[in-house]
Amino acid sequence: MRVTKRNGEVEEFDTSKVENSLRNSGVSEKTIETVINKILEKNYDLISTDRLYRLIYKLVKKYENKYAASIYSLKQSIMSLGPDGYAFEDFIAKILIQQGTLVETRQVYESMTIPHELDVVGSDFFIECKYHNSGGITTSIKDVLYSHARFLDLVEAGRKRKSNNFKQLWIATNTKFSDDCLKYADYWDIKMISWKHKGKDSLSYIVDKFHYYPVTLLPSVSKRTFSLLSKNNILLITEVIKVSDSLLRKIGLNNDEVRRIREDCDKIIKASEVIQK
Amino acid sequence: MRVTKRNGEVEEFDTSKVENSLRNSGVSEKTIETVINKILEKNYDLISTDRLYRLIYKLVKKYENKYAASIYSLKQSIMSLGPDGYAFEDFIAKILIQQGTLVETRQVYESMTIPHELDVVGSDFFIECKYHNSGGITTSIKDVLYSHARFLDLVEAGRKRKSNNFKQLWIATNTKFSDDCLKYADYWDIKMISWKHKGKDSLSYIVDKFHYYPVTLLPSVSKRTFSLLSKNNILLITEVIKVSDSLLRKIGLNNDEVRRIREDCDKIIKASEVIQK
Repeated sequence: MRVTKRNGEVEEFDTSKVENSLRNSGVSEKTIETVINKILEKNYDLISTDRLYRLIYKLVKKYENKYAASIYSLKQSIMSLGPDGYAFEDFIAKILIQQGTLVETRQVYESMTIPHELDVVGSDFFIECKYHNSGGITTSIKDVLYSHARFLDLVEAGRKRKSNNFKQLWIATNTKFSDDCLKYADYWDIKMISWKHKGKDSLSYIVDKFHYYPVTLLPSVSKRTFSLLSKNNILLITEVIKVSDSLLRKIGLNNDEVRRIREDCDKIIKASEVIQK
Repeated sequence: MRVTKRNGEVEEFDTSKVENSLRNSGVSEKTIETVINKILEKNYDLISTDRLYRLIYKLVKKYENKYAASIYSLKQSIMSLGPDGYAFEDFIAKILIQQGTLVETRQVYESMTIPHELDVVGSDFFIECKYHNSGGITTSIKDVLYSHARFLDLVEAGRKRKSNNFKQLWIATNTKFSDDCLKYADYWDIKMISWKHKGKDSLSYIVDKFHYYPVTLLPSVSKRTFSLLSKNNILLITEVIKVSDSLLRKIGLNNDEVRRIREDCDKIIKASEVIQK
């Protein structure tokens, strides 16, 4: 059975990739076997990676439970941090803060000539965030060059006016970078964070390992609920857990929504606890 | 009578601006007086600059002739160098060549890491062209930063590998630049060419003064004819004049189109000869 990738390339279906991905989502070995067998049985030759993903999601929901399926759909839940890029910026900032790095979002810094609003700012670096609401969109070299010019413009101001201390540019995306982006960034020492790039620096690894699950992972969180939560700077499941029911009601959730979000949080945490680290 | 500008600002109708503009287009003093009087008579208070322009165009066509009106619509004819940006790049290159500067269009240069396709390349500079098909679109700082990063990336390759000799970046647009663009460019020594910026360096001044009229200025040149001409690298009226009827037929113009384009060229040149330099 072969799989058709987004870029049109065809490759043999690699069961071990799916097995690992399901194992990382806390799916039991029994369900993993069932899912793989179901797929191989039907022999969906040349299936697209998108359709394959949706199929696996449904099978996990059916044979394991909807919470393991949610964790499996982590990438999708980060793509739901829309419609604009603000929630993704906040998400990236929260991850860094959880890891002990002090950052602020959407800060304006003056260069020698113009102001630059920076997405996420640390003591000696800043992060430009490129959020895309579809996995098919690759962050392109144009975005990287634009961000790099901003960085160089600010470094000049740092040197001449001591108005900042920026030493490095980071660029973070929830999808992927083109090869040109990575080559360029490697030469110019720009730190690149994308879904899969690069091993332990990848977003998927960090979010998986430390369970920085966004609220969009919770099955009961509708667009309306997400909008209410994100407006109030509640983006991670661990943040929902910390706030009181009365606060959730105060920001606009009704009793039923509060009850369901509590249940979802408990179940997701339970589902994630079985994941071997 | 007041005029509403594109950015919403309101200002008093300045007859001297229109008079100068009409004079630069070879319109007779008599027609200029008629046009101004017709407009003031009707008192179109708060008229948009776009509507005012179209009104004047019609009056010139009526009271002078369609060729003077065409020259008056020069900016519009450059906006018709679409649908993509290639013809505008070629137009800019042709202007430079006419002025004695050797340039080539769409050349690929390698930096230390990636290839950059450059719109117009001279011996020690290159030009990034930003073509817009509507006067309302301002070239923004994002485009300028992107181009500047490309320039710096190539300067690095020039320094390390002697693969180019670039000393300056130029950016050319057929509309205008935001204030931020101009401030940034001034600091980083980027040469900016736009419709009105800056005195004798402006596109309008150069095209007006040297009569670098694009073929889109000719009343008989339809989108079809323009496409045939530009595909064959005939962009300026002076270039049409130089090629034979048989060549024009060979590239796809029919007898009637050839006859009309010849008549148009003669009349435009006659109309432009009366313009005082």
